[in-house]
Amino acid sequence: MGNETQVFDDSVYGRSRVAESDELKQYYQDVENMGTKAFWTVANKIEPWEPRTLSAPMLWEYDKLRPLLIKATELVSPGDAGRRVLTLINDNLKESAAACGMLFSGIQITRPGEFTPAHRHVASALRFIMEGSGGYTIVNGHKMNLGARDFVITPNGTWHEHGVAEDGQTCIWQDGLDIPMANAFEANDYHVWPEEGKGQDQLHPTDFSPLTYSGSGVLMADTEWNEPYSPLFKYSWERTYEALQNAAKVNDGSPYDGILMNYTNPATGGPVMATMGAAMQMLRPGEHTKAHKHTGSIVYQVAKGSGYTVINGKRFNWKEKDIFCVPSWAWHEHCNGSGSEDACLFQFNDLPTIKKLGYYQERVYTENNGHQKIEQ
Amino acid sequence: MGNETQVFDDSVYGRSRVAESDELKQYYQDVENMGTKAFWTVANKIEPWEPRTLSAPMLWEYDKLRPLLIKATELVSPGDAGRRVLTLINDNLKESAAACGMLFSGIQITRPGEFTPAHRHVASALRFIMEGSGGYTIVNGHKMNLGARDFVITPNGTWHEHGVAEDGQTCIWQDGLDIPMANAFEANDYHVWPEEGKGQDQLHPTDFSPLTYSGSGVLMADTEWNEPYSPLFKYSWERTYEALQNAAKVNDGSPYDGILMNYTNPATGGPVMATMGAAMQMLRPGEHTKAHKHTGSIVYQVAKGSGYTVINGKRFNWKEKDIFCVPSWAWHEHCNGSGSEDACLFQFNDLPTIKKLGYYQERVYTENNGHQKIEQ
Amino acid sequence: MGNETQVFDDSVYGRSRVAESDELKQYYQDVENMGTKAFWTVANKIEPWEPRTLSAPMLWEYDKLRPLLIKATELVSPGDAGRRVLTLINDNLKESAAACGMLFSGIQITRPGEFTPAHRHVASALRFIMEGSGGYTIVNGHKMNLGARDFVITPNGTWHEHGVAEDGQTCIWQDGLDIPMANAFEANDYHVWPEEGKGQDQLHPTDFSPLTYSGSGVLMADTEWNEPYSPLFKYSWERTYEALQNAAKVNDGSPYDGILMNYTNPATGGPVMATMGAAMQMLRPGEHTKAHKHTGSIVYQVAKGSGYTVINGKRFNWKEKDIFCVPSWAWHEHCNGSGSEDACLFQFNDLPTIKKLGYYQERVYTENNGHQKIEQ
Amino acid sequence: MGNETQVFDDSVYGRSRVAESDELKQYYQDVENMGTKAFWTVANKIEPWEPRTLSAPMLWEYDKLRPLLIKATELVSPGDAGRRVLTLINDNLKESAAACGMLFSGIQITRPGEFTPAHRHVASALRFIMEGSGGYTIVNGHKMNLGARDFVITPNGTWHEHGVAEDGQTCIWQDGLDIPMANAFEANDYHVWPEEGKGQDQLHPTDFSPLTYSGSGVLMADTEWNEPYSPLFKYSWERTYEALQNAAKVNDGSPYDGILMNYTNPATGGPVMATMGAAMQMLRPGEHTKAHKHTGSIVYQVAKGSGYTVINGKRFNWKEKDIFCVPSWAWHEHCNGSGSEDACLFQFNDLPTIKKLGYYQERVYTENNGHQKIEQ
Ligand SMILES: [Fe+2]
Ligand SMILES: [Fe+2]
Ligand SMILES: [Fe+2]
Ligand SMILES: [Fe+2]
Ligand SMILES: [Fe+2]
Ligand SMILES: [Fe+2]
Ligand SMILES: [Fe+2]
Ligand SMILES: [Fe+2]
Repeated sequence: MGNETQVFDDSVYGRSRVAESDELKQYYQDVENMGTKAFWTVANKIEPWEPRTLSAPMLWEYDKLRPLLIKATELVSPGDAGRRVLTLINDNLKESAAACGMLFSGIQITRPGEFTPAHRHVASALRFIMEGSGGYTIVNGHKMNLGARDFVITPNGTWHEHGVAEDGQTCIWQDGLDIPMANAFEANDYHVWPEEGKGQDQLHPTDFSPLTYSGSGVLMADTEWNEPYSPLFKYSWERTYEALQNAAKVNDGSPYDGILMNYTNPATGGPVMATMGAAMQMLRPGEHTKAHKHTGSIVYQVAKGSGYTVINGKRFNWKEKDIFCVPSWAWHEHCNGSGSEDACLFQFNDLPTIKKLGYYQERVYTENNGHQKIEQ
Repeated sequence: MGNETQVFDDSVYGRSRVAESDELKQYYQDVENMGTKAFWTVANKIEPWEPRTLSAPMLWEYDKLRPLLIKATELVSPGDAGRRVLTLINDNLKESAAACGMLFSGIQITRPGEFTPAHRHVASALRFIMEGSGGYTIVNGHKMNLGARDFVITPNGTWHEHGVAEDGQTCIWQDGLDIPMANAFEANDYHVWPEEGKGQDQLHPTDFSPLTYSGSGVLMADTEWNEPYSPLFKYSWERTYEALQNAAKVNDGSPYDGILMNYTNPATGGPVMATMGAAMQMLRPGEHTKAHKHTGSIVYQVAKGSGYTVINGKRFNWKEKDIFCVPSWAWHEHCNGSGSEDACLFQFNDLPTIKKLGYYQERVYTENNGHQKIEQ
Repeated sequence: MGNETQVFDDSVYGRSRVAESDELKQYYQDVENMGTKAFWTVANKIEPWEPRTLSAPMLWEYDKLRPLLIKATELVSPGDAGRRVLTLINDNLKESAAACGMLFSGIQITRPGEFTPAHRHVASALRFIMEGSGGYTIVNGHKMNLGARDFVITPNGTWHEHGVAEDGQTCIWQDGLDIPMANAFEANDYHVWPEEGKGQDQLHPTDFSPLTYSGSGVLMADTEWNEPYSPLFKYSWERTYEALQNAAKVNDGSPYDGILMNYTNPATGGPVMATMGAAMQMLRPGEHTKAHKHTGSIVYQVAKGSGYTVINGKRFNWKEKDIFCVPSWAWHEHCNGSGSEDACLFQFNDLPTIKKLGYYQERVYTENNGHQKIEQ
Repeated sequence: MGNETQVFDDSVYGRSRVAESDELKQYYQDVENMGTKAFWTVANKIEPWEPRTLSAPMLWEYDKLRPLLIKATELVSPGDAGRRVLTLINDNLKESAAACGMLFSGIQITRPGEFTPAHRHVASALRFIMEGSGGYTIVNGHKMNLGARDFVITPNGTWHEHGVAEDGQTCIWQDGLDIPMANAFEANDYHVWPEEGKGQDQLHPTDFSPLTYSGSGVLMADTEWNEPYSPLFKYSWERTYEALQNAAKVNDGSPYDGILMNYTNPATGGPVMATMGAAMQMLRPGEHTKAHKHTGSIVYQVAKGSGYTVINGKRFNWKEKDIFCVPSWAWHEHCNGSGSEDACLFQFNDLPTIKKLGYYQERVYTENNGHQKIEQ
């Protein structure tokens, strides 16, 4: 039903189609003086026929950013910067410093022996590890060791800090937060750890959360978990990749996403945090998905392999550790560039919010066997 | 704990406090060229110490707007305007045409015999009736008659249209919608009724919904309701006011709000729609509440009586049918100006969203016995 | 699809149909000696083709019981009896003292100035008032005045006691409890109020709960209710009857029940207590419902009018204050005996439990235009 | 607070303590003739001070039952028996054929090439595999291969059948069902597969469910699961045991149960089926838990190791594959008999039901450092 060429006509009955007149011009001035505006002068703008995409599709190539990250380690310290992060800025969203929609993303680099100041905020955060060893996060007194392609959350309101062991190797990871969303709701905040220069004490054995909550199909019987986020804070790459491979043995997967698995809160089956979801998907060798579009903003990182994604007719080539985004209501299809290896895309998104608010809708691309024409 | 004079210091450990340098300036240029930004140059801005209020407190006086509404009936028809509405525009939110936060509000006027084109959209809508008789709404084939101070919803995705009977009197009501929120999520849309110039057929007896679902403490046994909004579409003033009065007999009420009752979905006990809540509160004769602030945006209409509200130290005097707003994280306290009559404030808000997203927080004003100093 | 004459054949493949033999007889003895039993010797009994009704349909006529209740007031005091109740005993359930299924019911009589000892128990209780004035209940410090046809709950674990004011008139009400269910789960208990001969203090203004929670479509904004039962403890006849009449204006109602409304927890829209539901239904003048059967046990009291109910082909004539029961999986249809007045049936049931456990199923009687043949 | 020696006195105020008299005897006869009973004559029986345990603690030793199972294979076929099962009968529950409380259990034996007739019923079933190879279950068209110590469910209303491959080895497993509960609610039923002598077709790839739903912390993104039971039908021993060992690295576990993990529905975090739960617990080398009691009935099977459980002062020695039960409100403590090996106990129980109905309570044994005195 969907196609690229649908035309909308604002002159039909039901749309605002008031003709201009001198009398109306005067009236518009009068109402503006009273803190109001004639609705019909803005109606068609604020009530578009279809969701209006504000964000630009973007690709950030890791090999171009990595030298700048290394350079940052020479210029600022985590103690002064708060966090040593390069923020990914969407071309259309410079004011809110968002990567896509109301999602923030950045790439953080930490050298051996460094650690960030402990803090907490209303915004929720997540991380996907790109490289390095000896990295760790402490969330509300829970210390977790981080390896490449692990996924870790530091939810809404939790104290957190990150670092790399003295004998580790420089760690780089992608951060994802709902900072622009929290600011749009005039709700974000920030608290520094009350003891200057110190961080949290470790309150639980290292990796308590993943060792306790990452069982398959089982949960500690005395689990009483009333927080709006997952008690499982770290999701290992090994288990996630194994799950994708197992599912691929018996599932065709989605025509639009291949084998796509959401990271979930094991205590509810729902998303890992209240505002943001995250997922890992596997494109099988040679897999080229069909295009669809839907509301919700998605930031991807290439966890494995290489290929390309077509977004609103424009092709974005990606390889491991590249980051790209698909804006709300933009057509998109993914293609694994290899005929022999699978490719995996990590993503985080605002879909839990979109769905809670009743804003989700989806449309399938029906022309040309589901594949967009690519702009030259 | 809260007070007006708290000072925040961005030079402490944990905040971004990197000193400028020529080398950094060059670096900032380099990273911007790659579609990124050094996080520490924006961190303190996008992670404020406390929620940052963007909206202005505003008061719209009904007696000043009413003549402009009457004038509009001479200038445009509902058929051309879509809806004949004066949109309430927050001084700080002209771009999004919002009244407060990400809430839209307007005042709509319909003359006898007029009706608006039927349509639907992802945004949810609600109405609070200000004056007139013979008004009606049709929601998904449900026709409901509307009287002064009735509250009615037209939720997310439902077909709706409004009108006034030939033998009625000009009706004026306040509209509330989440249009700015839906647009911020790049998700709003608009569909006109497929039959040009026609509207919905009535599929159920008039007032089916309120006659079926407004029982006290009882629900039809075969109610199967899986929609994310209330099956009760109209809440009558009589029953609402009676509930306030009954509760006042045995409750002290909230120190910040007097007797405050949320309109609820009787099938769940939750808010009437997925994104917005609504409530009616009664300030008893002479009642002057204490100040607090919290996240969430609220648009009020004075349903009954007169008095004033102090918002961030500024006094706003109100009387019946005036509309005002309290922005997120703004100190506010209400005062009933009468020592003998109660005053009632209708409100709609984004609190269901704020709470689902984990963004709610509240602070009590502790100085000066809970009362703000009023700016002269 | 359902009918009265379906025949089930236990000799088909899939049923247990092992022929007897001497060798098997010996084997059965051997396995019994080990605390076991050959499954196939009991399979067809414990896995019936359809739900097996254990309870008898019963009718208890109020005018026959009332004199015995009056007599009881001369024989025992509430202080000695605990509660002065005539328990309604199902002919097939004498061991568990149940009225129907695993539901207990009794009729309690209290004279002016009398009160029962305060106590609490895991079993939940509810009451429907039959006659008298000045009656009251105290539930967890909440005192509520009771009038004829009011419905009141004393949920699981709450302290409760009942009495009649000195200047009241002898009160009679029906009690309903899940005592047999709690005992079947080896879970019931009993606690007497710690102060001998004393009762609860009143902790809230009289009728706090109904004045606070019986609004139509509204709930106190600061309601935080985490109990598995309704915060509304008393449902007045006036409001319930008004709701039935309003619904009847715009609803055909159920072919099996006329206008049937469940008493609900206003904070959830669900049943009033965890184990038992209650409802009031109105049969319009001349209404004769069609027969159906379903799992779940129901105890009815005639709140208004007269008529009859046909249960598994047997006619039970009822008039105001009579009590009767419809067992699980028994065909039943109701008939209002009056062509000019409506008739109302109060009921309580175990349907919330039946549905939570996945045990609910229903079948419609299709022969003879939905009406059972009545045994002569 | 709990102890073994608490004495309850039925002569206190608040209990029924009516003295016998000739007049009352006549009265009791009169009321019985009306289908009623004087409540105070049964009150203390049906409202016990504490939950009244009806079931007997029992132990069924596998090595005594196994020869009888082998014998059964010579005496009856699955096609004639329905299922070739030895039902475990509680000494106190012969009428309902229950193993404990309202739980049914049996041991089923199937030889290579045999299969049971396909059928479905309202009662839910689960299985824990004891020995053999080549066993399989088909649940609603899902075929799953079963290995020793795997846990598998065949929920409420699903078509199911079991068998052993021609080239497999005789399989023995424990069945657990809620048949007595469904019958107590007059709700159980039975349907044979409509095609005589045939079974279900396989509708999905073998092991679709475990391969799709047993990921750790992830769920297929398009999972839409609205059934009241888990989409994961089989829980493998390997993953379950691994989860116990991981948790033991960082958890002390429960003083009453060691490391106890519930099998869960990954789509909700809740129990695997609506009426019954299941769990696996690990007692570490030398671990001897403290005694407690609670409502809810539990049937255990020893999955690994040996030791003993003390139930209401009586010691039950167990070794691998033995089955025993702990009745509701019976004191119990477990002891791993080995100082070097861990011991694992599988259990199924009615706790999801007990908790939904508000019937759960628990008491800790405080005397003697938490250990019961053992009867000689
Ligand atoms: Fe942070
Ligand atoms: Fe997509
Ligand atoms: Fe609209
Ligand atoms: Fe407020
Ligand atoms: Fe009681
Ligand atoms: Fe019925
Ligand atoms: Fe079965
Ligand atoms: Fe236990």
